[in-house]
Amino acid sequence: MKRREFIKKSAFGAVGGAAAATTLSTPALSKGKKQWIAVSAFGKAGLLGQALNEFAKFVKSASDARLSIKIYHAGELVKPFEAVDAVQSGTAQMGFGAPYYWAGKSSSISFVAAMPYGLTAQEQNAWCYYGGGIEAADKHAYNPLGLKFLPLGNTGNQMGGWYKKEINTVADLKGLKFRMPGLGGEILKSFGTNVVLLPGSEVLPALTTGAIDGTEWIGPAPDMGKGLYKVVKNYYYPGWHEPATILDGFFDLKEWEKLDDDLKQVILRGAAATNMFILSKFQAINNSALQKLVNDHGVKLLKYSDELVKAIGERATTVLPEVASRSKDGKVLFNHIIEFRRTMLDWSKYSEAEFLAARVAANFKSV
Amino acid sequence: MKRREFIKKSAFGAVGGAAAATTLSTPALSKGKKQWIAVSAFGKAGLLGQALNEFAKFVKSASDARLSIKIYHAGELVKPFEAVDAVQSGTAQMGFGAPYYWAGKSSSISFVAAMPYGLTAQEQNAWCYYGGGIEAADKHAYNPLGLKFLPLGNTGNQMGGWYKKEINTVADLKGLKFRMPGLGGEILKSFGTNVVLLPGSEVLPALTTGAIDGTEWIGPAPDMGKGLYKVVKNYYYPGWHEPATILDGFFDLKEWEKLDDDLKQVILRGAAATNMFILSKFQAINNSALQKLVNDHGVKLLKYSDELVKAIGERATTVLPEVASRSKDGKVLFNHIIEFRRTMLDWSKYSEAEFLAARVAANFKSV
Repeated sequence: MKRREFIKKSAFGAVGGAAAATTLSTPALSKGKKQWIAVSAFGKAGLLGQALNEFAKFVKSASDARLSIKIYHAGELVKPFEAVDAVQSGTAQMGFGAPYYWAGKSSSISFVAAMPYGLTAQEQNAWCYYGGGIEAADKHAYNPLGLKFLPLGNTGNQMGGWYKKEINTVADLKGLKFRMPGLGGEILKSFGTNVVLLPGSEVLPALTTGAIDGTEWIGPAPDMGKGLYKVVKNYYYPGWHEPATILDGFFDLKEWEKLDDDLKQVILRGAAATNMFILSKFQAINNSALQKLVNDHGVKLLKYSDELVKAIGERATTVLPEVASRSKDGKVLFNHIIEFRRTMLDWSKYSEAEFLAARVAANFKSV
Repeated sequence: MKRREFIKKSAFGAVGGAAAATTLSTPALSKGKKQWIAVSAFGKAGLLGQALNEFAKFVKSASDARLSIKIYHAGELVKPFEAVDAVQSGTAQMGFGAPYYWAGKSSSISFVAAMPYGLTAQEQNAWCYYGGGIEAADKHAYNPLGLKFLPLGNTGNQMGGWYKKEINTVADLKGLKFRMPGLGGEILKSFGTNVVLLPGSEVLPALTTGAIDGTEWIGPAPDMGKGLYKVVKNYYYPGWHEPATILDGFFDLKEWEKLDDDLKQVILRGAAATNMFILSKFQAINNSALQKLVNDHGVKLLKYSDELVKAIGERATTVLPEVASRSKDGKVLFNHIIEFRRTMLDWSKYSEAEFLAARVAANFKSV
């Protein structure tokens, strides 16, 4: 899409936004100082918007203002799902979102976000930083789009989702109108689920009118903020479809390559810290939200039945390879991730899983 | 301890080290540029030494050389366990180690490192950054020592340890000569274990001569590097004594407070990134080491019996409050951590634990 065409098609939140896009879309060079524009798929008010602001503030400060990043949150300059378009067209030099938001641009990129029955957050970070993950994602998903990828956050474990009626068997999945983006949705489709894709703002209205029978969202804290408990009460775990989801920072590859090494380091470390902060914040706030949902809002916490966990897991092993096989990049990325996952199955069992099972033996009381 | 006295007592690795201590011990000020000395409890060659070097390199670069940190790894300037002394005496402005290494200085500081049956790495980070953990650790452990604390790494889940003979019941713990530092050691003592404290370098010799019957160390990768499998074959999980261990960066509080805000930000973000990198690296390399230990070195992987897990867990609920009650700071810090742990018990169960149990249903194959 040409830039002019792109600007016409974009829904600018305000005249100021449009003006900024026109006057600032080319990185400004003044005494060796760069001014970038970043567009985010997330709202300004939430923890993701705040984390992005702090990242930009840090980059400016630690680069001695050699690189300033002006942030436009969702809808302020372009629509949430247009962040990649904005960077590709040169309107912005950086974007922030979740890799599966760009599935329309790349057949392999959803695998970077999360894989059903795949990696936990700690394993995803191990994959990214020391398992060749960033390099693999760049080579087989981002670079072909003219982008450079860095992890810039993680939701941690997600919840399984909200269902109007209880579900127990694979038969219950058939005909269900359910919102689930990404690879999890592909698996549900194979069971005859009517998978619906809806932007976040339309989820609660669709649940209310009965246009959908259920939805997954993120985890207890963001789900509570969205008010889903007001119309649906059955809340399932675990989030097999998104055991953890990487949030992506992406950069115009040509602009990235022009950066001095020390500026790259500021972005690399600043992004790794933001990744740590976002994951830690989700981890810290989810439990009290879970308590409130159950105790104050009458939410019923339900475990996916063993039958469902087993049947969906087995189906994942045929559906995901099928999706991956749609492109050479998809195949390579899928193989890269499941190979890393294979190495994690033992270690995470003997360490994290066995410890979590063991620690309930200690019931500490304050002194 | 006075500085002169300290320098006399310290074991300088080389004349160069001693000379450096004399000439560089006061932060150099030249055109507003600070030069700090950092002393580490860890060796130069390992991943921790490398991570510390990279942290210092980043701080210098991102501060435009307004703050340079010269690193002395274990033994290069002072002995590993003397890093706090070095900062307190003004010889260094920063240190790197594990909080329980400074237990002789503070009755509360071991609780910052790891708590038996306590928090996982992801939970510790949530506690540090968004659960008031850094503030609590500063107020009740580090500030009283004249120090400022930041997490600068995490080992992730540790393994339970190496035992010459299999252990199955609490009776097997009695009379055992076992190396286990920190709070886990306090619990074992209560079962009649002869708990031995040994620096890392003496562990393998002590195992070889029979001076000890077993030892815990860290996890598969560092344990393999240490060669423990050469003399002991029974390798137990899970690491109830150290479900994850925070590595601490600490700073001379007066020097820290003198820093401009933007320099503090460089250190804060740089440290959070280092924390992320170290944890990710341990996570990435432990599994292949575990495979090698079992497949190539004849190591027997054993699970602590349910009886032991239960008995030790129950004992932890009496021993740890006892240890905490030795000081007001210990009490406050213990209560702070177990309150945060209480909020994690549900969320980590419904998310991480249930997902890890569920994902074995999917056995992916390459495409």
